[in-house]
Amino acid sequence: MPSNDLKYTLLYHGGVPGRGEFIRLLLEASSTPYTDPANAGDPSPVYASCKPECTGIDGNPPAFSPPMLKVAGAGKDGKDLILTQTSNILLYLSKTLGFNGDDEVDAYYVNALTLTALDLNNEVHDTHHPVGTTLYYEDQKEEALRAAGNFREMRIPKFCSLFERTLKGNEGKGKGKYMVGKSLSYADTTVWQVLNGLKFAFPKEMKAREGDYPLLFGTFYPSVEGEKGIKEYLGSERRLKYGMGIFRDYPELDRQ
Amino acid sequence: MPSNDLKYTLLYHGGVPGRGEFIRLLLEASSTPYTDPANAGDPSPVYASCKPECTGIDGNPPAFSPPMLKVAGAGKDGKDLILTQTSNILLYLSKTLGFNGDDEVDAYYVNALTLTALDLNNEVHDTHHPVGTTLYYEDQKEEALRAAGNFREMRIPKFCSLFERTLKGNEGKGKGKYMVGKSLSYADTTVWQVLNGLKFAFPKEMKAREGDYPLLFGTFYPSVEGEKGIKEYLGSERRLKYGMGIFRDYPELDRQ
Repeated sequence: MPSNDLKYTLLYHGGVPGRGEFIRLLLEASSTPYTDPANAGDPSPVYASCKPECTGIDGNPPAFSPPMLKVAGAGKDGKDLILTQTSNILLYLSKTLGFNGDDEVDAYYVNALTLTALDLNNEVHDTHHPVGTTLYYEDQKEEALRAAGNFREMRIPKFCSLFERTLKGNEGKGKGKYMVGKSLSYADTTVWQVLNGLKFAFPKEMKAREGDYPLLFGTFYPSVEGEKGIKEYLGSERRLKYGMGIFRDYPELDRQ
Repeated sequence: MPSNDLKYTLLYHGGVPGRGEFIRLLLEASSTPYTDPANAGDPSPVYASCKPECTGIDGNPPAFSPPMLKVAGAGKDGKDLILTQTSNILLYLSKTLGFNGDDEVDAYYVNALTLTALDLNNEVHDTHHPVGTTLYYEDQKEEALRAAGNFREMRIPKFCSLFERTLKGNEGKGKGKYMVGKSLSYADTTVWQVLNGLKFAFPKEMKAREGDYPLLFGTFYPSVEGEKGIKEYLGSERRLKYGMGIFRDYPELDRQ
């Protein structure tokens, strides 16, 4: 799908799904072409606006960290727009691509649910880096064991319960397949991605808990996975494997 | 300012500024009346849609946690709208109240910068709760000392540098007083609130670093504090003191 003169460029680290994946899933669900330079062999454009001396490029503010989305010609004075923050990028894309519910109110529900799923995603990251992102896992392993235990016992059920009840409250329209309204939204793809990552990072814990959330794991999860653009994408080479990103294969942090 | 039949109800824990404060600051900057039931003696409305069995109220999805904003009559079928997630609430309010930059592109910059300041806010919380929010500080104090050291040395400068460079990049329009465009936005009030909290929680650390960011602490910070609605609010009884919320007086976590 990626080619060279496309409107959308996803600026994210190469080699891991990471936070870029939430944006990829919306682009792929809507069959929107995009370039992904770090995964096409040249990560340098990703870091230009994150440099510690950068005051912004083409009238855009400087970036804290990837992901960013570059939109050709959509910025100030016809220059390129560079947007930061995952949910902000999804919000922007949804104004053109849709996937944000049935009406204006739904669009706020979709944004809120996406932010909640991204909070969960951050909490997963903090299970293996509770002391700080700038230290190695090995240097905070003891803290990580405690943090992961707390996360598995208290936070996974709290988030899964919210998602299950959101599906239940919208069951009349969404049939258990959609969190908001009558069709796929980027809240669905975002929640799905976090659940997919949790199943990878905490396979025993998730296996033990899935039965408690029948709509979430029985209906919603397989349904999102089977949506046209998503199914095709997941079967393609563009879908990256988990590695040393947010979701990691550390069996010691899983249920024992 | 609060009265009983107002359009906007802020649903947040009583007694601490917390994440509710970001919403209060936008309402106060725009002199918008609102009710704040938990701080008016009745916290029960705050928790109705967060209950572990709730599938949503009046067609709104269930909430993960406060803050929420209730908007009378603005939801589905003329019912009350209940919105969750701080940045989502600010985004919604800005469509009516403004304070979101000079144009449509600016509105995305404002949202992104707000999200970045809220990320910093979360990281502050994690300095005293690195293992988990469900445990007492005293039960994770050792981890907190390590996490706070890392936060002070690596994260405070990284975020402050981004804010300084954002002001620099927008200096032509914002004169160092505004992060985006030519006037006050909710990105400014959000960044200001986090800096205000950091000065409370890490007074020695912030004192030692302020000189490195002349626009941020020399121009921006006092300017936001002096904006009409904000100045009035900060001098009122509605402005709550920091306590056992995000920003805490734990001298052992500050620079020694």
